[in-house]
Amino acid sequence: MSNFAAVMPELGRIEIQDVGYPRLGPREVVVEVMAVGVCGSDATYFNVGYIGDWVVDGPIILGHEVAGRVREIGPEVTQVQVGDRVAIEPGTPDRDCHECMAGRYHLCPRLEFLATPPYDGALVQYLAMDERNLFPMPDSMSYEEGAMLEPLSVGIWACHRAGLQPGDDVLVTGAGPVGVLAAQVARALGAGSVTVVDISDFRLGIAAELGLATERSDAPSSKTFDLLLECSGAPGVLASGLDRLRNAGRAAMVGIPKKPVELPLANLNAREITLALVNRYSHTWPTAIDLVSSGRVDVASIITHRFPLDGSEDAITLAGRNPESLKAVIQPQERSNVSAG
Amino acid sequence: MSNFAAVMPELGRIEIQDVGYPRLGPREVVVEVMAVGVCGSDATYFNVGYIGDWVVDGPIILGHEVAGRVREIGPEVTQVQVGDRVAIEPGTPDRDCHECMAGRYHLCPRLEFLATPPYDGALVQYLAMDERNLFPMPDSMSYEEGAMLEPLSVGIWACHRAGLQPGDDVLVTGAGPVGVLAAQVARALGAGSVTVVDISDFRLGIAAELGLATERSDAPSSKTFDLLLECSGAPGVLASGLDRLRNAGRAAMVGIPKKPVELPLANLNAREITLALVNRYSHTWPTAIDLVSSGRVDVASIITHRFPLDGSEDAITLAGRNPESLKAVIQPQERSNVSAG
Amino acid sequence: MSNFAAVMPELGRIEIQDVGYPRLGPREVVVEVMAVGVCGSDATYFNVGYIGDWVVDGPIILGHEVAGRVREIGPEVTQVQVGDRVAIEPGTPDRDCHECMAGRYHLCPRLEFLATPPYDGALVQYLAMDERNLFPMPDSMSYEEGAMLEPLSVGIWACHRAGLQPGDDVLVTGAGPVGVLAAQVARALGAGSVTVVDISDFRLGIAAELGLATERSDAPSSKTFDLLLECSGAPGVLASGLDRLRNAGRAAMVGIPKKPVELPLANLNAREITLALVNRYSHTWPTAIDLVSSGRVDVASIITHRFPLDGSEDAITLAGRNPESLKAVIQPQERSNVSAG
Amino acid sequence: MSNFAAVMPELGRIEIQDVGYPRLGPREVVVEVMAVGVCGSDATYFNVGYIGDWVVDGPIILGHEVAGRVREIGPEVTQVQVGDRVAIEPGTPDRDCHECMAGRYHLCPRLEFLATPPYDGALVQYLAMDERNLFPMPDSMSYEEGAMLEPLSVGIWACHRAGLQPGDDVLVTGAGPVGVLAAQVARALGAGSVTVVDISDFRLGIAAELGLATERSDAPSSKTFDLLLECSGAPGVLASGLDRLRNAGRAAMVGIPKKPVELPLANLNAREITLALVNRYSHTWPTAIDLVSSGRVDVASIITHRFPLDGSEDAITLAGRNPESLKAVIQPQERSNVSAG
Repeated sequence: MSNFAAVMPELGRIEIQDVGYPRLGPREVVVEVMAVGVCGSDATYFNVGYIGDWVVDGPIILGHEVAGRVREIGPEVTQVQVGDRVAIEPGTPDRDCHECMAGRYHLCPRLEFLATPPYDGALVQYLAMDERNLFPMPDSMSYEEGAMLEPLSVGIWACHRAGLQPGDDVLVTGAGPVGVLAAQVARALGAGSVTVVDISDFRLGIAAELGLATERSDAPSSKTFDLLLECSGAPGVLASGLDRLRNAGRAAMVGIPKKPVELPLANLNAREITLALVNRYSHTWPTAIDLVSSGRVDVASIITHRFPLDGSEDAITLAGRNPESLKAVIQPQERSNVSAG
Repeated sequence: MSNFAAVMPELGRIEIQDVGYPRLGPREVVVEVMAVGVCGSDATYFNVGYIGDWVVDGPIILGHEVAGRVREIGPEVTQVQVGDRVAIEPGTPDRDCHECMAGRYHLCPRLEFLATPPYDGALVQYLAMDERNLFPMPDSMSYEEGAMLEPLSVGIWACHRAGLQPGDDVLVTGAGPVGVLAAQVARALGAGSVTVVDISDFRLGIAAELGLATERSDAPSSKTFDLLLECSGAPGVLASGLDRLRNAGRAAMVGIPKKPVELPLANLNAREITLALVNRYSHTWPTAIDLVSSGRVDVASIITHRFPLDGSEDAITLAGRNPESLKAVIQPQERSNVSAG
Repeated sequence: MSNFAAVMPELGRIEIQDVGYPRLGPREVVVEVMAVGVCGSDATYFNVGYIGDWVVDGPIILGHEVAGRVREIGPEVTQVQVGDRVAIEPGTPDRDCHECMAGRYHLCPRLEFLATPPYDGALVQYLAMDERNLFPMPDSMSYEEGAMLEPLSVGIWACHRAGLQPGDDVLVTGAGPVGVLAAQVARALGAGSVTVVDISDFRLGIAAELGLATERSDAPSSKTFDLLLECSGAPGVLASGLDRLRNAGRAAMVGIPKKPVELPLANLNAREITLALVNRYSHTWPTAIDLVSSGRVDVASIITHRFPLDGSEDAITLAGRNPESLKAVIQPQERSNVSAG
Repeated sequence: MSNFAAVMPELGRIEIQDVGYPRLGPREVVVEVMAVGVCGSDATYFNVGYIGDWVVDGPIILGHEVAGRVREIGPEVTQVQVGDRVAIEPGTPDRDCHECMAGRYHLCPRLEFLATPPYDGALVQYLAMDERNLFPMPDSMSYEEGAMLEPLSVGIWACHRAGLQPGDDVLVTGAGPVGVLAAQVARALGAGSVTVVDISDFRLGIAAELGLATERSDAPSSKTFDLLLECSGAPGVLASGLDRLRNAGRAAMVGIPKKPVELPLANLNAREITLALVNRYSHTWPTAIDLVSSGRVDVASIITHRFPLDGSEDAITLAGRNPESLKAVIQPQERSNVSAG
């Protein structure tokens, strides 16, 4: 049976290939992939070929924000059934090492993560995954929303790492997909106020429609904050955000900077700031499902563009071409000229 | 200038007396009291005359859920102005002892708390309070809502003491005012789900209208929970609630039981349950204001009855007479036969 | 090859049987067992046949406080070598369930724990264990000390569950093996003071020799405490210990009570006490090794009696017969009439 | 009555002046100052005249590590008596602001701190202090040891801010007084191991005599750590220390850097490092007294030099002149040519 995927055979190019129907391990499941969100990391691998120590050194399939339908289950699968609509957590830990047993499986040194070299991702029609990575979705949740649970998880974990407390006044720097989701999470977890800062009026407009306070980064107010969620990755933003924290302020820096970020520490001592670095997330999918299905977080509103499987290259390059975009979703069962496999 | 109050000269009787216009300390403020909620503790002092070690031993003015308008300020007041609409935190700590300096001013051994013997409460037209107990209210918040910030604070603190984590499935036992507010707080702080249990269909109906899941206590489901907020005070409810907690479950017991509660501990060990006792709250008013003014918690819906000042006795005895009541509010500027002072 | 064990064929009787040399799984190790401490739970299974829901329903080998020497390793073992001197953690979790992945493997519903029915224990010459349960011991640590890391772990976990903070004044009720070790742990983790209470002058004497403050339970002082570690299991001791806690005091109740413990909660609210139940421990062996090998905790001093394998019944019944005993250790390689296997 | 002090009338010069016997507020106490430790900040004010935003702009008395004897008490003093031997906490908060009430009095914006401009310090014979800054010392504790509770408090707070957990492997960079004390604190609070790094063999020798593991900073081992306490203040040391942390590692940076410290953040994300900045301490004196009086921390061994009051300039400049020095203590009651006041 054919199984078409969007393969990146070399930097800067995607082509549709039949990669073959996956073989199934005893606790694995074949998921018919319905929606895959495009992440900034996909664009970085496409354009540059590496993030930190992860280097693309051969053909790779991108995409790790995924939801789909269970098509087939291995003989020892007990937690899902054929036909289940599922969101997918993209990292598979070894469940054996010190990190896993300490409750930090996301730091497992043998973590296999979709679309992180050397592991292929989800821009494929049929994907084999361990059943323990699958989370059944409520009927009310669309596949697109299910795919968005991955960037939402980044926001949940950022709040966790920063130590969000009820009543905190929260500053979110960067109104990209992660920033807008992290801001909504902060509000849904009891923040006193949430302010999103960006330079793009388009992005701030989306944040404002979601009921979030906004500021242009070139016209900051004098408000101070208890918590900073740095989601822009842009140079200097972390330092200027830290400057706006009150005594005992806390900050989380989301994502992996492409090069060293320099951080002037003077004056942070006087206020006893705490800075937490962030590497993805763990244990977040159930909470993400609760927040979305109850309406406390709106993930659908960040999706601005949709593409069929053979539009994957367009989807991945969208953010670099179109400043009026926020999140692209690829539908692997759709193709522009042919019907889905 | 006259200043009428609802005085309890002896157990079981309230009369309206002119108690004299208050004298003002340098950092004190005279508040024109606009709304006072009736708490179960008011009814207990009225009926029984004591709660734990606090014993009524002379005339006392009840009422500690309060909001009003600033009418006059002392010479050193800097934080509020005449005309400000304010919610009042009823406890005044000494700001000197070990507890205060440790951030636990609610456990200050010299705490002066409205309507806790020997201190008078707020069922009076004009009340002198330290400015540090006053919290300006947004224009959108009514005085009634401002008064409800006190029981809301109990709910916030219960969640804090129980150690609520985002995603927790929460069981609230007791759909009285505190239970219904605590349940809303749990949801507003990111609970995965919130279920309220009570025997009263009337009270469960109010909870259901607020979007909370409900169960009759005589027909419990088999669902289990991460967190228990025991708000009923009824014998045996704590033990049966604890039985429904999962591994590593946490519980907070709100309020001061009238007599010893016996708690079978067997089996709680196996699941490593943690039980936190609760004594009021601290540092909660800013968060309470945020939750109400943003619409994340609805405090107005629990108010079922309103009374003028000279209806205070009816208000205080309401819950015992009318099972279809939840929260009574007294308006000290209103009198049934005369115009407000 | 023979492998003699102390088998309990029926309640109240131990006999030495050849149980056969163990077969080895790929990640398993055969340990030549050198020292096994006797725990109160061993005596309870011997005398009564059950603890909570764990019921002895066939022949069983007791003993779960163990150290020994690696004699043979399975083909996939990488973490230990033949000849290694090792302390053994007695619980083997499934490393798959929600509890394990949450960092709470001790609450794993499929935990296989030595000498907890239906699993056999360590009163045997050669024991097969998963390599991940083995912790190499420093040369300076004796096998007896290695076996004591298990009750020491109970003490470490009790301090963790109670939330010990540096400077806390700690009350330990019960000067049995766990109490004396928990008290030393509290001191080694920075307690401001540690006071041990018991009725037995013999046991208090051992505590005093270890430099701990002591009180007879029938002549308590008026000192108050921040933290309570209830290690006696005796009725009423938890309640009286809680009475001695200050504001914001914390307590851990160690062990599984044989019947429901009733706990009067009145007055605990006023002080906002927190009570944590305790089920064994997790992640404690490395810390236990550090504390013992650095001399910060003295585990050897609690060992008052030693027995060969065929003295197991005498060892298990010792505490009930001899009030001047604290901890018995059985040496499975020793027999009173024959040379060790 | 005369009261001689070591006054710094201008940068780089100390002279002995009679500053007049202090007047006493109602809750104040006159302390006969017996021992004052010299801190690096004293030397910085002497040499450079400022630390961060604190600028010397007139004559100032230095010294804030203090112990002495109560000579006189104000009319409302209740906590100490004439003759009491006391250690002094040098910061006096307003006990009124948000920070004080939140339990963070050390961040009080109106904190008055000895020897921090514009407040005078303790290099004086008779010093007036609020009684709430005084901590009676056990008989076994010398005045010198009492003065060392201040730098010891820095070490305690660094461990607190870093989130030290029992069993942590701790790296301390910098074997100055704070580093050597922080290292001992880490051990006394249950660290699994403590390693001190410095370039000075003299300082490492003192650390080694105290039983701490040591490394030369130019010959680091490959050991990795859970916790970093950066106590050197030297450029680049924080970054290289962070490199040696394991997954979920935590770090505290002690002290106020003289200029911005640049911190390459790349790779810290992957390990989810947390970095806490540190501003002095709060609530530490009782714990400091416990640790010293029980022998768990040795503060006396860091004192390498002693001076009379008129040797204050020599004491303050010692560290810059003599690499084989660690901590100088000044005895204000002693003068080289005259008998003490």
